[in-house]
Amino acid sequence: MTCSATDHRAMARALQLAARGLASTTPNPRVGCVLVKDSQIVGEGWHRRAGEAHAEVEALRAAGEAARGATAYVTLEPCVHHGRTPPCADALIQAGVTRVVAAMEDPNPLVAGQGLARLRDAGIAVSTGLMEDEARELNVGFVSRMTRGRPWLRLKAASTLDGKTALSNGVSQWITGEAARRDGHRWRARACAVLTGIGTVREDDPQLTVRAVPCERQPMRVLIDARLDVSLSARLLQDGKCLVAAAVADTEKIAALADRGVDVVLLPNAHGKVDLPALMLELGRRGLNEVHAEAGFKLNGSLLREGCVDEFLLYMAPMLVGDAAQGLFNLPELSQLDRAVRLDLRDVRRIGSDLRLIARPVPA
Amino acid sequence: MTCSATDHRAMARALQLAARGLASTTPNPRVGCVLVKDSQIVGEGWHRRAGEAHAEVEALRAAGEAARGATAYVTLEPCVHHGRTPPCADALIQAGVTRVVAAMEDPNPLVAGQGLARLRDAGIAVSTGLMEDEARELNVGFVSRMTRGRPWLRLKAASTLDGKTALSNGVSQWITGEAARRDGHRWRARACAVLTGIGTVREDDPQLTVRAVPCERQPMRVLIDARLDVSLSARLLQDGKCLVAAAVADTEKIAALADRGVDVVLLPNAHGKVDLPALMLELGRRGLNEVHAEAGFKLNGSLLREGCVDEFLLYMAPMLVGDAAQGLFNLPELSQLDRAVRLDLRDVRRIGSDLRLIARPVPA
Repeated sequence: MTCSATDHRAMARALQLAARGLASTTPNPRVGCVLVKDSQIVGEGWHRRAGEAHAEVEALRAAGEAARGATAYVTLEPCVHHGRTPPCADALIQAGVTRVVAAMEDPNPLVAGQGLARLRDAGIAVSTGLMEDEARELNVGFVSRMTRGRPWLRLKAASTLDGKTALSNGVSQWITGEAARRDGHRWRARACAVLTGIGTVREDDPQLTVRAVPCERQPMRVLIDARLDVSLSARLLQDGKCLVAAAVADTEKIAALADRGVDVVLLPNAHGKVDLPALMLELGRRGLNEVHAEAGFKLNGSLLREGCVDEFLLYMAPMLVGDAAQGLFNLPELSQLDRAVRLDLRDVRRIGSDLRLIARPVPA
Repeated sequence: MTCSATDHRAMARALQLAARGLASTTPNPRVGCVLVKDSQIVGEGWHRRAGEAHAEVEALRAAGEAARGATAYVTLEPCVHHGRTPPCADALIQAGVTRVVAAMEDPNPLVAGQGLARLRDAGIAVSTGLMEDEARELNVGFVSRMTRGRPWLRLKAASTLDGKTALSNGVSQWITGEAARRDGHRWRARACAVLTGIGTVREDDPQLTVRAVPCERQPMRVLIDARLDVSLSARLLQDGKCLVAAAVADTEKIAALADRGVDVVLLPNAHGKVDLPALMLELGRRGLNEVHAEAGFKLNGSLLREGCVDEFLLYMAPMLVGDAAQGLFNLPELSQLDRAVRLDLRDVRRIGSDLRLIARPVPA
């Protein structure tokens, strides 16, 4: 596939539009569409939320008759299924679009290529792969759920430069500054769920809602609480959807939680703890694309050891507190450095006076 | 003082020349000089090493008769004292220079301004302060010694992203990559001395020489070894100058060390350890400008607690090893975050696959 500068510009615009749905399309992917005729944009659209029009339909509506003979740039292969809206591939054919450029195929291996095939069968020129990396990153969680059956888990932590998340007495407010906290809320907002452990709830009683930035829908909360120790007055249970993952069938507590609209899922592992990989699959089944974890060093360590962490969002404050303070990850003692968790550092930047690192584990 | 673009360009060039002496001028400052006439550079010079010509004399030699009527840009106020070379202020006057721009005054408060005054008395137009910050940074150690009587102490450490310098069994080779190690040697090379503690010598038996980059003179080594436990076969004692700071007057050991050309200085504090602030003053008396510390978490903690650390050079490897491993700084347990050591993050960059941070403690 050779692409022109116009193709690149149009797809970059489509990705930009798609990103407007960052915090609202769940469980659907974020998708943008741009229609171009005679080097002019004649229609644009993006998917706002599940149940509403797909990006292609929005763009076709905006273009009206001008769509005839146009090229459609879409960040994801147009759908062929009748869901809550009619298939987009058919809509593009009916509108008389003559060329379709898709950044990537549908990540669901069961339907990948079908939308493009239907377009080709209708005589439309089709190509894929333009800005595919960017398109995959934009829907990293949706791609994860479609290909692995589980959400993308992003683990957020805030530490000092010497790797401490709290003093030995538990004091952790505030290690990082206002700008980092606001940035953290931005990442919460794009997630389908914010996940934490009972230790953090006991120590800090957090709400885990998005407050520091505008957000039209709150992510659900997921609490890992093997023995169902959570107090019914815990703040994260109070409003919005909350799921508690437990390892004991305490029917009384489960009923009391249900009374408050809190769902409980029992996923014990052989050690009487919550089976974290099984929980990830359960969250995938429930349609969660991106999960944002904010927990203490024990759950952080367990998530990491059990292969559940896909990405680290690490804020570091320019501060030293010494070795007596609490660390980031509870991991088993290592005797060789080649057993360390190696990370691919993808982004490093200053956020206010703090540092922000985005890293992903390198497969061993 | 108003400065033209020509002034800025010439001073930037003088600073660049001065930096050529980064690893060789000790105990003298790094100094560069550029002579400009009719917007053309007619002579350049820099100070190579103690006992050799000062930057001004080098530049005047290069310019010859063209120095008459020229402007001299110097990164440091020209000297007026007869040291190993005659006073530069006099040389500039004799050469017929008509204007002198100095980036900064002599940092020694006892002589500051005298060179400029002599130039003014000779009818030369004089100004100071152009690119002064850069000039001070270039000679941060010399400025420290002249103003505080002690060297600038730069503490180098290499850790994982979770703040660990070694596994619990002591394994630390190699946390950071080849590029970071080479960069670390570049910082060693510019230092007058590399300082470490007996713990590091026992565990790693390092040479602490500059090997990974070219270096015409090795920095001296300073070992903090309160009880004179160092083995006579320790590698850092083998070649080049080494000073051992101790707290016990073990005459036999001192004699054995002296036999090997190793100097011992006794600086006990009230706790039977080496008095670190007193050692800093002793190193200042010995003409050391920049000291590069590479030690373990105990000595790192002591240097930090006792106010000896002026700058951190922190390499972070994109790796996690968990909380059982060894931390960066042994500091007393804190109960409040406002007791943390706050740092000013001055530079953050990637070095190979690692991160490098340069930070300075913020005065409390």
